[in-house]
Amino acid sequence: MTIANSPNEIISPDPQTPEALIEYYKSVRAFTERMCEPMVNEDYVIQSMPDVSPTKWHLAHTTWFFETFVLGNNYPNYEPLNKQYNYLFNSYYNAVGEQFCRPRRGQISRPTVAEVYDYRHYVDEKMIDLIGRLGRDGGLESLRDTIILGANHEQQHQELMTTDIKHVLSMNPLRPTLYDRPEDPEPVGVPRLEWLRYEEGLYDIGWDATRFSFDNEGPEHKEYLNAFEMGSRLVTNGEFLEFMNDGGYQRPDVWLSLGWAEVQAGNLKEYDWEKFDHPLYWFKENDEWWQYTLAGPRPVHPDEPVLHVSFFEADAYARWAGARLATEAEWEVASADADIEGGTYSDSFRFHPRPLPLDSPKGRLHQMFGDVWEWTNSAYSPYPGFTVAEGAIGEYNGKFMANQIVLRGGSAATPQNHIRPTYRNFFYAQNKWQFMGFRLARDAK
Amino acid sequence: MTIANSPNEIISPDPQTPEALIEYYKSVRAFTERMCEPMVNEDYVIQSMPDVSPTKWHLAHTTWFFETFVLGNNYPNYEPLNKQYNYLFNSYYNAVGEQFCRPRRGQISRPTVAEVYDYRHYVDEKMIDLIGRLGRDGGLESLRDTIILGANHEQQHQELMTTDIKHVLSMNPLRPTLYDRPEDPEPVGVPRLEWLRYEEGLYDIGWDATRFSFDNEGPEHKEYLNAFEMGSRLVTNGEFLEFMNDGGYQRPDVWLSLGWAEVQAGNLKEYDWEKFDHPLYWFKENDEWWQYTLAGPRPVHPDEPVLHVSFFEADAYARWAGARLATEAEWEVASADADIEGGTYSDSFRFHPRPLPLDSPKGRLHQMFGDVWEWTNSAYSPYPGFTVAEGAIGEYNGKFMANQIVLRGGSAATPQNHIRPTYRNFFYAQNKWQFMGFRLARDAK
Amino acid sequence: MTIANSPNEIISPDPQTPEALIEYYKSVRAFTERMCEPMVNEDYVIQSMPDVSPTKWHLAHTTWFFETFVLGNNYPNYEPLNKQYNYLFNSYYNAVGEQFCRPRRGQISRPTVAEVYDYRHYVDEKMIDLIGRLGRDGGLESLRDTIILGANHEQQHQELMTTDIKHVLSMNPLRPTLYDRPEDPEPVGVPRLEWLRYEEGLYDIGWDATRFSFDNEGPEHKEYLNAFEMGSRLVTNGEFLEFMNDGGYQRPDVWLSLGWAEVQAGNLKEYDWEKFDHPLYWFKENDEWWQYTLAGPRPVHPDEPVLHVSFFEADAYARWAGARLATEAEWEVASADADIEGGTYSDSFRFHPRPLPLDSPKGRLHQMFGDVWEWTNSAYSPYPGFTVAEGAIGEYNGKFMANQIVLRGGSAATPQNHIRPTYRNFFYAQNKWQFMGFRLARDAK
Amino acid sequence: MTIANSPNEIISPDPQTPEALIEYYKSVRAFTERMCEPMVNEDYVIQSMPDVSPTKWHLAHTTWFFETFVLGNNYPNYEPLNKQYNYLFNSYYNAVGEQFCRPRRGQISRPTVAEVYDYRHYVDEKMIDLIGRLGRDGGLESLRDTIILGANHEQQHQELMTTDIKHVLSMNPLRPTLYDRPEDPEPVGVPRLEWLRYEEGLYDIGWDATRFSFDNEGPEHKEYLNAFEMGSRLVTNGEFLEFMNDGGYQRPDVWLSLGWAEVQAGNLKEYDWEKFDHPLYWFKENDEWWQYTLAGPRPVHPDEPVLHVSFFEADAYARWAGARLATEAEWEVASADADIEGGTYSDSFRFHPRPLPLDSPKGRLHQMFGDVWEWTNSAYSPYPGFTVAEGAIGEYNGKFMANQIVLRGGSAATPQNHIRPTYRNFFYAQNKWQFMGFRLARDAK
Repeated sequence: MTIANSPNEIISPDPQTPEALIEYYKSVRAFTERMCEPMVNEDYVIQSMPDVSPTKWHLAHTTWFFETFVLGNNYPNYEPLNKQYNYLFNSYYNAVGEQFCRPRRGQISRPTVAEVYDYRHYVDEKMIDLIGRLGRDGGLESLRDTIILGANHEQQHQELMTTDIKHVLSMNPLRPTLYDRPEDPEPVGVPRLEWLRYEEGLYDIGWDATRFSFDNEGPEHKEYLNAFEMGSRLVTNGEFLEFMNDGGYQRPDVWLSLGWAEVQAGNLKEYDWEKFDHPLYWFKENDEWWQYTLAGPRPVHPDEPVLHVSFFEADAYARWAGARLATEAEWEVASADADIEGGTYSDSFRFHPRPLPLDSPKGRLHQMFGDVWEWTNSAYSPYPGFTVAEGAIGEYNGKFMANQIVLRGGSAATPQNHIRPTYRNFFYAQNKWQFMGFRLARDAK
Repeated sequence: MTIANSPNEIISPDPQTPEALIEYYKSVRAFTERMCEPMVNEDYVIQSMPDVSPTKWHLAHTTWFFETFVLGNNYPNYEPLNKQYNYLFNSYYNAVGEQFCRPRRGQISRPTVAEVYDYRHYVDEKMIDLIGRLGRDGGLESLRDTIILGANHEQQHQELMTTDIKHVLSMNPLRPTLYDRPEDPEPVGVPRLEWLRYEEGLYDIGWDATRFSFDNEGPEHKEYLNAFEMGSRLVTNGEFLEFMNDGGYQRPDVWLSLGWAEVQAGNLKEYDWEKFDHPLYWFKENDEWWQYTLAGPRPVHPDEPVLHVSFFEADAYARWAGARLATEAEWEVASADADIEGGTYSDSFRFHPRPLPLDSPKGRLHQMFGDVWEWTNSAYSPYPGFTVAEGAIGEYNGKFMANQIVLRGGSAATPQNHIRPTYRNFFYAQNKWQFMGFRLARDAK
Repeated sequence: MTIANSPNEIISPDPQTPEALIEYYKSVRAFTERMCEPMVNEDYVIQSMPDVSPTKWHLAHTTWFFETFVLGNNYPNYEPLNKQYNYLFNSYYNAVGEQFCRPRRGQISRPTVAEVYDYRHYVDEKMIDLIGRLGRDGGLESLRDTIILGANHEQQHQELMTTDIKHVLSMNPLRPTLYDRPEDPEPVGVPRLEWLRYEEGLYDIGWDATRFSFDNEGPEHKEYLNAFEMGSRLVTNGEFLEFMNDGGYQRPDVWLSLGWAEVQAGNLKEYDWEKFDHPLYWFKENDEWWQYTLAGPRPVHPDEPVLHVSFFEADAYARWAGARLATEAEWEVASADADIEGGTYSDSFRFHPRPLPLDSPKGRLHQMFGDVWEWTNSAYSPYPGFTVAEGAIGEYNGKFMANQIVLRGGSAATPQNHIRPTYRNFFYAQNKWQFMGFRLARDAK
Repeated sequence: MTIANSPNEIISPDPQTPEALIEYYKSVRAFTERMCEPMVNEDYVIQSMPDVSPTKWHLAHTTWFFETFVLGNNYPNYEPLNKQYNYLFNSYYNAVGEQFCRPRRGQISRPTVAEVYDYRHYVDEKMIDLIGRLGRDGGLESLRDTIILGANHEQQHQELMTTDIKHVLSMNPLRPTLYDRPEDPEPVGVPRLEWLRYEEGLYDIGWDATRFSFDNEGPEHKEYLNAFEMGSRLVTNGEFLEFMNDGGYQRPDVWLSLGWAEVQAGNLKEYDWEKFDHPLYWFKENDEWWQYTLAGPRPVHPDEPVLHVSFFEADAYARWAGARLATEAEWEVASADADIEGGTYSDSFRFHPRPLPLDSPKGRLHQMFGDVWEWTNSAYSPYPGFTVAEGAIGEYNGKFMANQIVLRGGSAATPQNHIRPTYRNFFYAQNKWQFMGFRLARDAK
């Protein structure tokens, strides 16, 4: 996607001066810490499943990223605060050395939370010093991209911190509130679903701008698309409940074979919480559906977009509804029409999608950016001509291009200046703990 | 792919008369039974892993397919030989009813092998009777496609019978021979790998002919491809050994993340046989590599195409070699150039790929059809506009379109008249027990 | 137990002459083969769970025992029929070499059933030849004990063949009949349970006779017992149904902690067949309980002893009933009173326990020998002074003395001349597939 | 064991007055909290395996015990601090209601550590108030036993806290120190092992005193023992290293079958730390054995008793050494001779056994109480006449009497006034994380 053609330029910050770069660095780092303010010490430690990392680990790992890829080779005589942190806080960069095993991240009480904050501030001080110095003395240019990558990396982990702490706290029968949220308005309904048409043709897909993007968003290349139609808004809880009430989770005919296997395996889980017959975090009380949120439990609101569903559930719903999911190219082409309808992003610590207002304008796409990551029907594969960078940074995205599905658009937990139309998020088809939802698409007649 | 444009028409039989249809039906059914001739009764019963089905089950299931989709609704007052066979021999067609659980297919001693043959002959008699009668009285036309589908279904299972019995017998430390095979010639080397170039452009992909294809091969549609190059031949055992000797299985940098996880999990397997550090069926004896084949154990022949490797291994080799795997569209476009070089297919019961002769003509693709199914870099997804048929037959292919990878070209275990340039075979990235190998591709400069 | 004190001498055969030894050997070996007569070839191959061995394996392993421990070192220039059989058919004797892994015994189609019979007859011929020759020339005495051990070993496997083939066939939804059995008589009730008292005192426990026993039955030693009472008969299906109908499987208070864990784990099993909320092989049809038997499915007969229950279920029932299980010493002391009430043993191929006749004499123990192995409350531990034999034979019993529970008395699947009052059978507390049941005991007031 | 006959009365406190009872209650409660002083907040939260509970949970559960069994029914209008704590902090008392699932105890960040301490102090206040009031007003007598049981229950958890936090911290590659310990003295050797003889005869076993014991220590009853000999001291690290160096972990002949299976399964573990080929917490560095202790890593000291070995390893060592483990009755009979050799108990926060001084007196047993829990060869079964109490308290010990092994004598982590000669500790044969070791025994000639 040639970003200059887009009516809605959603772009990453592009700090040109050393001062701007320092400001940008500080703002991203500070936001991470602001997110943690409501947490108690004990919240930082827990890993509720292998996919989840403790908050403490996220705080340290994002710091490790700057230490390893920026300070290590560039700060004169850099001395790490603790030499074992390289082993403890490396996630998956084999080129940088062995890693402490992922499913045991929650078994490490030390370093303490306070020590991890010391680590952050130790690295911050050195980073700011280094940027300032290189800005004066020359040499910043070659590091700039890595620093901006590090900031974007930290923004990814800001979202993961949210999704992970939500999973952690959801395990607790006390159902704690982490971030307050005003009471939800009464259900009033959402606008009727419209089908917006896009014509057959050859489109440019992927990122070609000079500003930051992740490597997996390029190279820009051509894709030929048949004419298709996109649903004007996200599928809601109310609609998903219709699917459930119609026996959607009991009808193998609407499921992919692996999805049906998940449903059946879910029925054999020891803990009800893990059953695969409703969106994650939903539970029934007095015959009414509730959902756990970071603001505590709330009744399932019919007007909100459905949240925490897997690809399998999105795909099954679409088949049940006589539609399908969009491919990621279709989504990207359609997104050129879409406005950013602000207010749903993470800055407010709301961390929960909003209903589409009943009086939203007709004839256009809504809720494309923010609210929920939208499952596409596209496997996560390299774009034509994609190559990975040399060295450890090359492990950033490329090595995950198997068995994952692309999601697009960003969620209520994504920092606003971290969303792009070409952004390719990716998770396994059975994953539900990210802020995931979907919209419908179909072939044009 | 518009088949009329192909210089090498590889096409399914297209029996037009009732007699021809009967002949075709009988020939496919008879070939299945000829394949079993060297088996002893005990061989038919065993299931060596959940993916594998006992030969007895294959014999019955392919029969069940005709019984269920042809005879059941069309043969006047059809009486099944045994009413429970519908439950026992349904594979995965939920619309037809519940199925006996797959991992227990090897726990069923009855019906006996003889009873299963009785079942085959009972159904054969009715089928031939029905085709003849409808041919005379009218009404055959509406059933013709289903009968041809059933024959193609049985041909798929002919290949699965081969791959499954190979897995079964490979478990046996007696290393039995099922099909004799002449001694292998001395290694003489293979032609140097050439890179053949294909130009950027918009191509027609998929099947548009009126003859039989599986539903997943269509609809025909356009794909835009960058210029690319294909390797002129398959990667050989000798080349794969270089990868192994260069520490290929010990270097995480050349592996996809999930592939590396398979390697590590393989190291923890109880049985050496299951380690993931060599192609399946390879074993070392006196410091030399051997491989189990259906003709018993043989030394690994450096000139033969490498066989029984997973997508992960193919992908890792390609990265190690500075290349990549082709997409399925690239493979299909390139295949228009390729001859069928016969003699490697299953009719001879050889069931093993051959080395490419040293004097093979230069400047063209070799080994595209037969020998080994070639891993592509394409996830198995629906083509644009793909829809599934109504009813149980709709479960044939569509519901497997998640987490699998497309393979192209057919193998030494594929019946010759069952191969097409548009044929989309699909397996999981970690699977090795099919006749799988690969060739290299790369972006054109 | 000093057998001379017993009113009911139940003793092993004690063949003194070479001719008698040959006769004994031949009769045991022949009975094994007679048991197999109703089987089809496919029945011999299957292993339905890791605990189960295929019939073919039992036939070969019992032969391997004679080959390894008798022929190998004593038959002049003995040539094994196939050198790899030592690896394939060794069960667990590490001193004799490595073993083919147990859970894969069902993945071996070759040697065929016919080849295994050839193996039996090959070894039989050599055995008979050897006994005859040594009987004439001297040297038999030192081998006699090992041959008798081999015959007893084969008798153990006769029972295991029965329990294993029952498990195998039970997996088959066709529910085949292997051995015919006359129709069951109408329920008429069983005699009321009486409590028979045994006095406090010091008792001799264990085997001291010169005739054959397994090593674990000795040495004879003293045990001090408090006064206790034994139930006069086995617990019946009717009584066990009362426990079930009283919510016995839903009340944690009557279960050992590990037993309750089994119940809960059973509820999560994929196959109903494996649920742990009824005796094994029971299933409900039209709201009535049935049980699978080797004579096909039968309604659960209230007068029959309950069969195929684990130690956990026996213990829970006893607690529910305000009683307990006997210790093995209590059982052995009480057994001195008991008659052998023939007719329930395996010679008739009935393989199913009988109800206690309503007019059985009062004031005495019934059903102590045969019918069902009775769970005791004793962990399987070495008797004081127990030592294992040197060499591989020492692995026969001793190394299993951890985490198993002793059962006493023999079952409907035990050969009659294989039962002794001191016989210590042992299985894991959760096992159900042997012919297991129980009687009640309690402290005397 | 009639305690009055014992030369070394090791007895529980027996507080007779309300003041003494309050003092006793307070001292036990306070010791628990003193143990936690060196911990950081994060240490309290982690559960490193399902068997382990977080420290925070231990602190709350021991409090819950008093709340549930004392305050709930006796404190006028008792209001729990938080009604959900009953669900969260019940361990396994089904009669008291459902429990939060054990393997998830480490997934609960709230209540926080501070809130748990508040809970402790809330309950302490009410307990002291209640004891005082009932002491004055009458009614204390009926509660006294339960309060003393609660204190002993808390002492058990003091030891579990130590063993659990050791396991938690051991997972941390930073290998933190929790309790300082002076440097170990140089190895000087230990006294030669002597064999002390005990005569055949009828002995009284079990507790008959009026002071506190757990229910499983009674009733007192008679056991007949053959003459036996006990090793004068514990097996040392130096001796265990000889076993290891002699290939002890590679020789199946010295292992019980299940133990050998553990060794083999250990070889397949992902984390070296979990291999089953050395005592737990041992690791090799520069070819030298080290062990993790709560005072950080130390070289393995040859004179110290071997620690953190399973029953399987103790049994294998004994077989290798031509000896055996004692039965629990033998151990109890022999213990009548033994002095308490103080200084090894937990009061000093040493939590590590000491070498036996080289000049220890000959001709008598050493190290019987404290240092390490000694594996016996006795399965954990009810004593003759044992019955469980009515109600939830009856779940304390009885329901665990399956598949566990008795250990005797107390360890370096057992509070000194919590040890008794009749104390029956019990764990699974494969467990290693308690302070477990062993001494040898053998039949007397």
